[in-house]
Amino acid sequence: MTEQIKKELTGWVHAHREYGINLLQQLVQQDSTQGNEQDAQRLVADILRGMDLEVDIWEPGGEELSRHPDFISARENFKGSLNVVGVLKGQGGGRSVILNGHIDVVPAGDREQWANHPFSGAIIGGRMYGRGVTDMKGGNVALLLAMEALQESGIRLKGDVIFQSVIEEESGGAGTLAAILRGYRADAAIIPEPTNLKIFPKQQGSMWFRIHVRGRSAHGGTRYEGVSAIEKSMLVVEHLRKLEEMRNKQITDPLYENALIPVPINIGKIEGGDWPSSVPDLVKLEGRMGVSPEETIDEAQTEMTRWLAQLAAIDPWFKTHPPRLEWFGARWLPGSIPLGHGLMNSLCANFRDLIGTDPVIEASPWGTDGGLLTTAGGIPAVVFGPGTTEMAHFPDEYIELDHVFKAAEVIACTLVDWCGVAQTNKAGRKSDDPENAIH
Amino acid sequence: MTEQIKKELTGWVHAHREYGINLLQQLVQQDSTQGNEQDAQRLVADILRGMDLEVDIWEPGGEELSRHPDFISARENFKGSLNVVGVLKGQGGGRSVILNGHIDVVPAGDREQWANHPFSGAIIGGRMYGRGVTDMKGGNVALLLAMEALQESGIRLKGDVIFQSVIEEESGGAGTLAAILRGYRADAAIIPEPTNLKIFPKQQGSMWFRIHVRGRSAHGGTRYEGVSAIEKSMLVVEHLRKLEEMRNKQITDPLYENALIPVPINIGKIEGGDWPSSVPDLVKLEGRMGVSPEETIDEAQTEMTRWLAQLAAIDPWFKTHPPRLEWFGARWLPGSIPLGHGLMNSLCANFRDLIGTDPVIEASPWGTDGGLLTTAGGIPAVVFGPGTTEMAHFPDEYIELDHVFKAAEVIACTLVDWCGVAQTNKAGRKSDDPENAIH
Repeated sequence: MTEQIKKELTGWVHAHREYGINLLQQLVQQDSTQGNEQDAQRLVADILRGMDLEVDIWEPGGEELSRHPDFISARENFKGSLNVVGVLKGQGGGRSVILNGHIDVVPAGDREQWANHPFSGAIIGGRMYGRGVTDMKGGNVALLLAMEALQESGIRLKGDVIFQSVIEEESGGAGTLAAILRGYRADAAIIPEPTNLKIFPKQQGSMWFRIHVRGRSAHGGTRYEGVSAIEKSMLVVEHLRKLEEMRNKQITDPLYENALIPVPINIGKIEGGDWPSSVPDLVKLEGRMGVSPEETIDEAQTEMTRWLAQLAAIDPWFKTHPPRLEWFGARWLPGSIPLGHGLMNSLCANFRDLIGTDPVIEASPWGTDGGLLTTAGGIPAVVFGPGTTEMAHFPDEYIELDHVFKAAEVIACTLVDWCGVAQTNKAGRKSDDPENAIH
Repeated sequence: MTEQIKKELTGWVHAHREYGINLLQQLVQQDSTQGNEQDAQRLVADILRGMDLEVDIWEPGGEELSRHPDFISARENFKGSLNVVGVLKGQGGGRSVILNGHIDVVPAGDREQWANHPFSGAIIGGRMYGRGVTDMKGGNVALLLAMEALQESGIRLKGDVIFQSVIEEESGGAGTLAAILRGYRADAAIIPEPTNLKIFPKQQGSMWFRIHVRGRSAHGGTRYEGVSAIEKSMLVVEHLRKLEEMRNKQITDPLYENALIPVPINIGKIEGGDWPSSVPDLVKLEGRMGVSPEETIDEAQTEMTRWLAQLAAIDPWFKTHPPRLEWFGARWLPGSIPLGHGLMNSLCANFRDLIGTDPVIEASPWGTDGGLLTTAGGIPAVVFGPGTTEMAHFPDEYIELDHVFKAAEVIACTLVDWCGVAQTNKAGRKSDDPENAIH
């Protein structure tokens, strides 16, 4: 019986390739950078309504959100930035699932570096191009196609499927946190971020830090009378490299096998000094610290604080001028789902079935909203989606269209396994059979 | 006879302490930062006219200046910024001298860091405070007092004394270059920059450089897929440190004995990366390369260019991504006067005589307009003045007032030795004796 259902679902997805491509193109053509998500979200809401889902649209805000310990945002409010949730209500007695995707995309950057307009949605050789097409509108469309396949095939599930199109993932997850606080919970979650169809039961968390390294100014002609904050910052960078090495030596989980550095410490920005002829007295380093799913944000922060304190033993300058560490800006919580979790099993089995190979199971090198779902919502999340992160955040971002449909098929079949089938109706949702109608 | 003259000169300076302090205070109270030199220069011109000198005031400009190989300036023109020259014409048959001081001062910087207003000219415990008081209005007043002592004492010299109050020294020397091109030449020059009464027969030149270090961007979570321009820039900084070491090993002149690094390479500024979570793909280093009086600007530039090319042997990354070097902004030519030069001898002898100790003779760790006088004008220059560079360019800049008068006395007596005495007139310049009148 289930095999027959799965054949129907994959058949539907296969038959609606053009429809799916159009949908993705429309979504990509909506510039949904931070603060501009409204039009894209309206489009998503229309699609959900078209599927007869219960649709909930709201502007995140309020004290419960802003005072939540996991809340982080540079925005004062989310005026005009809407969250959209559509619920495919189950018939009862089954396990529920959250399908979570973010609508926000990072800025397009320098237009000149794009071959086509960043929001063109141009299709060339089986790939669609555009900002956000891989991160993560392709994944979102895979979710929508999976749900629509269920609806159109007249398959009623036992458990609820809660689709979430959230804002702010790229800036710390306030959208997903708001959805949790609005009461949306489920037994597990799937997040189709661009894993290149790998399955990520663990996600690396991360957070930003800033380190102020002091020097002492002097004229460049007698630079030996000063202390160069640039030279001292080199010692700090070196010291952080050793912390990274030490932290990563402790990680033995085979899920990180393919990651040269499972939880890297990246120095992304440096800025110091203000005059070529002066010895610089201050350098600011900004970076991202990876957080393993086996530790908390607090533990990682404490470790770095203690590590930097050891600089005093390396150079007496740091005894009197300890670098100042601050945590600022974005933060993504690490997340994980047990390897033997039922959702993992369904996902892997369907992957094998439909793709024909064993899935690659790894830990993700970046955070997703899955960390928030796990930590703040108690909802274990797995990350699996089309697209590759190599393309995310860069000019000429693209997605292999085939992968969108493959992901949609795998996810649709996984929903069937996880939520359980209550009823089927060959005629699909357009049937007038009152027994199959949605209430 | 000369001993008697010198006694008169020092007596005059001694007797006019209050007058000199007032003069310095008035000058300091005129904010003469770049573009605002006019009021201070008018004051200087009035003083020169009061001494019955031939006064020449002009706005530097024209193609001869801007096309000169030693011209460097970020300004498009010098509108409103005047050069002032006053000539104390000799009676003939003597050696001439240029007394060169700059009127421009560097910006006051953060007002909050000053105990008093930056242009207060406040006097506390024998020190006067204010932006430019040590760099170099104190030196300029020493020159004016030296000349006035001669005039008021009725001493007529054989050689010309050409006093120059120039603009733009802090920005590459366009003011002094303009004075050279206007035809002002002499057998030697004295520049009373703040040497703390040391005598600097050699002056370090310097120039600014910028180095672009490339990396390859990647997401910070997989930073090992990228190449950090920050890490590569650390190799460049280290490599430059070795160039500095090598260059300074070659300097054996005892004049540099007290300089830990005779011609330093200072990295004053660093800037790179634009996102904490990204691997930075570009770092820009800006610095100042010291140029020894034994080499030319061109030679030093070529040495650095060749040195950077060797980075390819240290790290293959630089083979495909060589750092890009550019010379920009300010530049000060090195300068020198032979140790046995007559002006040096007079200066040292008068120093011993009046201060009572052997003068400290060193090479300066910074450039002055003396480099231009030597290179573009063929005029050997010695630097000797009150004030210390530790104070220059910093908040609460001050000068020991005693040193201004000591410098004035030494310089006045040196002028007598160098230019030679033509006539004396006890009654001073106010005498009606036509024989002693200035024509």
